Amino acid sequence: MQQPIGVIDSGVGGLTVARELMRQLPKEKFIYLGDTRRCPYGPRPKEQVKRYTWQMVHYLLEENIKMLIVACNTATAYTLQELQQTLAIPVIGVIEPGARAAIKSSQNKQIGVIGTEGTISSEAYPKTLKAIDHSISVDGLACPSFVPMIESGILSGEEAEKIVSTTLKPLKKGNKMDTLILGCTHYPLIKHLVQAEMGVDIQVISSGEETAREASLILAYHGLLQQGNSIPVHEFYTTGDMEKFRNVANSWFDAPIQVLELVELDPIQSSAN
Amino acid sequence: MQQPIGVIDSGVGGLTVARELMRQLPKEKFIYLGDTRRCPYGPRPKEQVKRYTWQMVHYLLEENIKMLIVACNTATAYTLQELQQTLAIPVIGVIEPGARAAIKSSQNKQIGVIGTEGTISSEAYPKTLKAIDHSISVDGLACPSFVPMIESGILSGEEAEKIVSTTLKPLKKGNKMDTLILGCTHYPLIKHLVQAEMGVDIQVISSGEETAREASLILAYHGLLQQGNSIPVHEFYTTGDMEKFRNVANSWFDAPIQVLELVELDPIQSSAN
Repeated sequence: MQQPIGVIDSGVGGLTVARELMRQLPKEKFIYLGDTRRCPYGPRPKEQVKRYTWQMVHYLLEENIKMLIVACNTATAYTLQELQQTLAIPVIGVIEPGARAAIKSSQNKQIGVIGTEGTISSEAYPKTLKAIDHSISVDGLACPSFVPMIESGILSGEEAEKIVSTTLKPLKKGNKMDTLILGCTHYPLIKHLVQAEMGVDIQVISSGEETAREASLILAYHGLLQQGNSIPVHEFYTTGDMEKFRNVANSWFDAPIQVLELVELDPIQSSAN
Repeated sequence: MQQPIGVIDSGVGGLTVARELMRQLPKEKFIYLGDTRRCPYGPRPKEQVKRYTWQMVHYLLEENIKMLIVACNTATAYTLQELQQTLAIPVIGVIEPGARAAIKSSQNKQIGVIGTEGTISSEAYPKTLKAIDHSISVDGLACPSFVPMIESGILSGEEAEKIVSTTLKPLKKGNKMDTLILGCTHYPLIKHLVQAEMGVDIQVISSGEETAREASLILAYHGLLQQGNSIPVHEFYTTGDMEKFRNVANSWFDAPIQVLELVELDPIQSSAN
C-alpha cells in the first residue's frame, strides 16, 4: 500500500505547492487539507493558528501519512519547529526552501520578499536568511491586494498588471536586489506579472517549486520515495464550501480533481496540544 | 569549537563545489581533501575507487567532521549509498542534487547530462532521474575534452568556444531538451560557454550550486548549522603536488587559500573496508 504525503493549508493557496509536489514527485500520493472555513490564518492570534494547525495535523496523521508539508506561510512561521520536534515523520514548511533557493540564486546578497502582511511583519524570511548569512540584506513588502485579486480569478490582463505595478513600486525604488522571493503560496499564479514588472534580471523564487524540491530530497534521504510506477489518485479535503474549492482547484490544476471531501475538524483532537 | 564539514574529491574539480558551499554557507568551516596524486578516478575499477574514497573518509573522520560532501561524480556513483548507510554523520553526493534541480526546472521532461565518460557510461543520472519520474527522457553526452581544457586554464576565448561547440554538437541535433545538467565538477568553470552554445532557453544546472543548497537543508534539518558570526578559516589537503594545487585553487577562488597541507593516505586505515 502506498503511504500518502499530507499537505495542509489555511485554504486554497497551498494548492500551488501541491501542484508542484505532484509535478516533481509524480509517483507519490498526496492528501491535501485546506481549512477554507477558517481562512485566512494571517490575521489570527498565534495560539489560535497553532490550535487550528494541530487539528489539521491530527486529522492527517489518522490517514497514515509518511511526511507532512505545511503549505502555508503563517502556519509555518508559528508551528514548524514544534511540529518537527513532536512528530515522528519528516515535516517541511514553505519558508526555508524559498530562503535557501534565494541564497543559491543571489550573487549580490540583496534579496526581496513579498507576502501577506502577516508573513512580512513576522520577519520569518529575514530571520531565516540572516541565520545562514548575516551579510544578506533583505527588503520585504506586504502586498495585501494580491490574494483577493488572485482568488477573484484575475491572473492576467490590464487590471492585474496595474495592481501588480502599483503594489511593487516601493520595491523597485532604488533597489539593487537580484532575487525576489514569492513569500505567499498564492503568488506563483501571477509570477509572470511579477517577473514582467521587476524585469528579466531579477530571479523570482517560487516557494512551491522549492518546497517540492526539498520534499523530494527529504523523502530520498529517509528512503521514503515511492517505488514502482503506479499512478496515484490524490485526495482533497476542505472544511468549507466544496463547490468553491472545486472550482478554484480545477482552474489551477491541469486536470480536474477526482476525490474531494468535506471534513469537520474535531476540536477534541487538539485538546492535548 | 566549530565542527568542520568535510569535502572529498579525486582532485581539484570538487573545488567548484567547495566554492559554492563556502558562498552559500559562509559561517561553516570546510576541510577539503583532494586525492590529486591518484586523480582521475574515472577510469579506475570500482573496488579501487571505493578503497581510495574510504581512505579519504577515514582521514577526515579524524578531523571530527559533522557532515561529508562527496564532491566527485565517480566516487558518488560508487560509494554514496555505502557511506550513507555506514557513517553516523550525514553524507551528500553531487549526483542527486543536480537531478532534483533538473526535475524542478524542466517543464517538458527532456533533460540532458554532460560529464566524463565514466559518469555518462555509469548511467547514474538517468537512473536517479527515472527513479523519481520514469517519464523523463534523458540524453547523455561524454565530453572527454573538457577536463583537460579546463585544467590547462583555457576557460574562454576562441579555442575554448570551438572545443565546446564541437563537443556539444551531438546534443543539439534535433533535441528538444529544456534543461542540461553539468554532470562534472569541473564544468561550472565553463558554464558561460555551454550556456552560450546551447542558447538562453536551456536551463543549465550546476551540481555544485545544487549540492551546496542541499547541504544547507540537511544541516538545518539536523540542527547542525553553525551559530554565531565567526569567520571560518578553511583547510585544504592534497595528496599530490602542492604548488599545482595552490595555483589552481587560487585561480578558481576569489581569495587565496590560507591553509594547504600535503597528506599521505594510510592504506592501513582502509583495510577494514
